[in-house]
Amino acid sequence: MSLLVIGSVAFDAIDTPFGSTGKIVGGAASYISLATTLLHKHVGLVAVVGEDFDFDFVSLLKARGTDTTGLQIKAGEKSFFWHGKYHMDMNSRDTLVTELNVLGDFDPIVPEAWQQPDYVMLGNLSPQVQLTTLDRLTRKPKLVVMDTMNFWMDIALDDLKAVLKRVDVLTINDEEARQLSGEYSLVKAARVIRAMGPQTLIIKKGEHGALLFGSEGQTFFCPALPLEDVFDPTGAGDTFAGGFIGYLASTGRTDFEAMKTGIVYGSALASYCVEQFGTTKLASITSEDVDARLAQFRLLMTEKA
Amino acid sequence: MSLLVIGSVAFDAIDTPFGSTGKIVGGAASYISLATTLLHKHVGLVAVVGEDFDFDFVSLLKARGTDTTGLQIKAGEKSFFWHGKYHMDMNSRDTLVTELNVLGDFDPIVPEAWQQPDYVMLGNLSPQVQLTTLDRLTRKPKLVVMDTMNFWMDIALDDLKAVLKRVDVLTINDEEARQLSGEYSLVKAARVIRAMGPQTLIIKKGEHGALLFGSEGQTFFCPALPLEDVFDPTGAGDTFAGGFIGYLASTGRTDFEAMKTGIVYGSALASYCVEQFGTTKLASITSEDVDARLAQFRLLMTEKA
Repeated sequence: MSLLVIGSVAFDAIDTPFGSTGKIVGGAASYISLATTLLHKHVGLVAVVGEDFDFDFVSLLKARGTDTTGLQIKAGEKSFFWHGKYHMDMNSRDTLVTELNVLGDFDPIVPEAWQQPDYVMLGNLSPQVQLTTLDRLTRKPKLVVMDTMNFWMDIALDDLKAVLKRVDVLTINDEEARQLSGEYSLVKAARVIRAMGPQTLIIKKGEHGALLFGSEGQTFFCPALPLEDVFDPTGAGDTFAGGFIGYLASTGRTDFEAMKTGIVYGSALASYCVEQFGTTKLASITSEDVDARLAQFRLLMTEKA
Repeated sequence: MSLLVIGSVAFDAIDTPFGSTGKIVGGAASYISLATTLLHKHVGLVAVVGEDFDFDFVSLLKARGTDTTGLQIKAGEKSFFWHGKYHMDMNSRDTLVTELNVLGDFDPIVPEAWQQPDYVMLGNLSPQVQLTTLDRLTRKPKLVVMDTMNFWMDIALDDLKAVLKRVDVLTINDEEARQLSGEYSLVKAARVIRAMGPQTLIIKKGEHGALLFGSEGQTFFCPALPLEDVFDPTGAGDTFAGGFIGYLASTGRTDFEAMKTGIVYGSALASYCVEQFGTTKLASITSEDVDARLAQFRLLMTEKA
């Protein structure tokens, strides 16, 4: 099954109580691609970088199975850059610098070979760009998954609502679910958000796990793995989404039972992601590592063996 | 299997964003007894009340299967009273009034028939009283479970540490685990606390579920049921502990596998507790209701049916 990924491929600089990175590779689609290709190899990327980007990382994406034909490289321009600082609890963070650069006028050109994907992952990006991407597909995909964040709820809510009408699954965190729905209870929030379009909603609660609300009132919960240390949470949500849709694409399924296993894969991959700065850990693990972490999750979750 | 419960039986007044109760029955041992006797009938209570107490509630405890021989009634004295106010998030609360009354000099007299219990539940109470209770048992129980709170860590840490050496299972919440251990990571906190005595640790995370850390490095997570509304969280932790030990006592088991199911029972009962003010909901449900909620939990938790 073909899986199209769109999102930012960019530079980050990350400050945590444990240290600072300087400029490193980041961006939603970088994490999604690395996560997804651990589970499934038929993956195409639509994104944009400047000529300053780290092309060793692009080689890594290719080597791991991502078709980067749709990655635009803008001569004379700079890549998107985000600089953030995490607080002691590693849950909250401040944005210190955002330089849009090439993302400012990103036109998501979808290569002809990728205009009929089976699965689509709309990584966190301007809702207008997410919408344009969907408009450029020439056949309805089996499943469209969208990730977004509070920033777009603040500045582009109408566009965001327009995309929501066209996606099957939305992934957002608990605070964002409350903001988008105006409801504090996540059960009520899920009902309101699902009425906006997505049949299925995944609410990510970081270290507190993730909730899956299905199209027929089903609910499933997957915990986060309790870790000795959370080193850098950047990209955990993107990695989670990549693991989720990567598992589904690898099976060709879109039913609730498969989605349950999808969020276990997403959680397993996210638990690796946070163990080192940036994409370092995801870039170093293999499918055997994924299986080992999956086994740990199932021990943690399973009441009766 | 006989199960001895000790803890407060008292009056509460509860203010929430949804309303205020006036004076109602509360206290750790009230919740524990109601929860436990939904699962197991051989339960004895050691507690103290004043002559102002609500004796219909004592009749209810008896009717539900608690032996109240060990409930002292102090003539001319008043019952313990706590008045608290919950904030909008229903997680944090302020104490407005605490009147110790009969709890101030509580001497936990254990009736002779209850001096050799198989299971012991030390509900939240002064560690000195918890210790005295253990001293008065004439045979080592199969399992001692202790619940406590940050208040005792602040004012009676040495006594608390003395009790910890003599219990098998400790249940505390995540903030309390961090305070007691000095570690932010719950995995590290669990290691530090288990070295203080209890072989098994349960960290309660409220709406985010509960973590069970076993004596051989095993970890199990049970989610909280996502609810439309949390009406009153008072007693949820006590109810959880009551469900946990009630299930174990009903089976006669103390192994990790049984404890996993124990925390599912505890979580199921706690999810009922918060649906109405005080003990109202627990007092109205039956074992059929418990089974129905158990089934909901297993749907929520089970990846592969």
